Amino acid sequence: MNRVEEFVAVERPGLEAAIRRLIEPLGPPLGSAAAYAVGAGGKRIRPLLTMAAHDAAIEGGYQAGDDDERTRLYRVAAAVELIHTYSLIHDDLPCMDDDALRRGLPTTHRVYGTTVATATGAALQQVAFLALGTAARTSPGLAAHLPLIVRRLAAAVGGEGMVGGQLLDLEAEGRAPDAAGLEAIHRAKTAALISAACALGGLVAGATPQAVRALGSYGAQLGLAFQMVDDLLDVTGDPSDMGKAVGVDQARFKATYPAVHGVDGTQEQARLAGDSALDELAELPGDQSVLVGMVDFVLDRMH
Amino acid sequence: MNRVEEFVAVERPGLEAAIRRLIEPLGPPLGSAAAYAVGAGGKRIRPLLTMAAHDAAIEGGYQAGDDDERTRLYRVAAAVELIHTYSLIHDDLPCMDDDALRRGLPTTHRVYGTTVATATGAALQQVAFLALGTAARTSPGLAAHLPLIVRRLAAAVGGEGMVGGQLLDLEAEGRAPDAAGLEAIHRAKTAALISAACALGGLVAGATPQAVRALGSYGAQLGLAFQMVDDLLDVTGDPSDMGKAVGVDQARFKATYPAVHGVDGTQEQARLAGDSALDELAELPGDQSVLVGMVDFVLDRMH
Repeated sequence: MNRVEEFVAVERPGLEAAIRRLIEPLGPPLGSAAAYAVGAGGKRIRPLLTMAAHDAAIEGGYQAGDDDERTRLYRVAAAVELIHTYSLIHDDLPCMDDDALRRGLPTTHRVYGTTVATATGAALQQVAFLALGTAARTSPGLAAHLPLIVRRLAAAVGGEGMVGGQLLDLEAEGRAPDAAGLEAIHRAKTAALISAACALGGLVAGATPQAVRALGSYGAQLGLAFQMVDDLLDVTGDPSDMGKAVGVDQARFKATYPAVHGVDGTQEQARLAGDSALDELAELPGDQSVLVGMVDFVLDRMH
Repeated sequence: MNRVEEFVAVERPGLEAAIRRLIEPLGPPLGSAAAYAVGAGGKRIRPLLTMAAHDAAIEGGYQAGDDDERTRLYRVAAAVELIHTYSLIHDDLPCMDDDALRRGLPTTHRVYGTTVATATGAALQQVAFLALGTAARTSPGLAAHLPLIVRRLAAAVGGEGMVGGQLLDLEAEGRAPDAAGLEAIHRAKTAALISAACALGGLVAGATPQAVRALGSYGAQLGLAFQMVDDLLDVTGDPSDMGKAVGVDQARFKATYPAVHGVDGTQEQARLAGDSALDELAELPGDQSVLVGMVDFVLDRMH
């Protein structure tokens, strides 16, 4: 097992339990739809980044021991995953990308209908903020950072973040993409939440503003690399590995990195983004090994 | 001018400015759609309740003076209105009530399309939480209550609140409504946010837990009365006064109070809910006159 696999093996059970506990109170049909959407085989990259960023921001690295503190961190990380899940549900809606498959399974609205899927997305946004409030309620340290935590997550999701990016992406369909427009779309649509996921880990750890900024920049660069590799896999990937149709982006004339920069150019850019991400880690006081491994993990998907 | 009109005349300009400032950064098309939805002649009942509840929770009543504090309160109140606006946009969507008119104007998705309307609703949820974080950032007093403020608002909106209530309402269409089911729908769909609007005012004022609870109960009862009167107006109202089609609820076999309790029975229940709301105000240390006037305002719409 490499360092990332080891980290996932240790942390994923606690994270999954936190996710389950947050969506359970929703009850049917919202809870069932949420459980379906969240359970469909996600890799939990964003919340695991929140946890790894937290540990990288702690002087000398995280030492297992304070269970309450870890539970709060799981909860904040789970909030990030629920925001991501909401975005997938809404992204697939008939009025958005109108996708039938996600991770090899029918999309949430295909199973539960558009009404329930739309409402589930909205409810998950609320569950995420409820989770942040709950985590802060039992910790004065965390409460002190809650204004920034709430702002950082809301800004990453809203009009200048993911939601705005989804619209830019839809507007760009069918038009000749350019490099600047492409980056604007993916900074907002993909990188903003991954950046926030990392910054939140730092904020929960009580990191310095510089460390939080470095984690945010690491996340933004990693997010861009992630999107580049995702675009590459849409061109070069095997449908049975991907769990969704490939070639879809091209068929829709979506703004993708290979369409703008070519396959080789995109690989090169992904490596550069990965290097920029690694550069941000230099000054962090804790254990950076998982964050370093995450960059390798993302880039290794290219091959 | 009665006490409510006087309060509205003094407070509405600051509130409107706060709302504008929050949605401006969204830019087109989200900002345009949000401005359209929020500008369409709303009475701002919920945010004005937040402000009135705040003043009712302050010993001796609010004294004009601390502009920064009032600006923070306007921002929190504006967040409540943006959540309400999001709910109206999503409630009108083709996958929800599929309404063409709202307050006498075409609904947001009829003007901006379903894609932009869905995204605008999601973005407004985020703007609301961003506003709460921003308000708390400059006030240690407010920051101390932010965990509860975030939890209270998120719970009112999510699966056990407004979003869940919308689904219950849709599920109940066409079925013979019963009194318990009807109350469950409207407690979640309408009363939860009005209750939270009032509780948030108390939390911003740093009120005691008892006072916050009383304000929340006042809001819940007022919200139920409000819904009863709304249902009555759908049966008895004049379309030109209502700004929307009347008789719609009946035509859809929606679960309404007159359908369950009759017109006279609903009027009686609305008066009882109004009385219960007033009972909650007894122990509040500040100026209750606007909250009292709000009950009259809601009940007077019956006639």
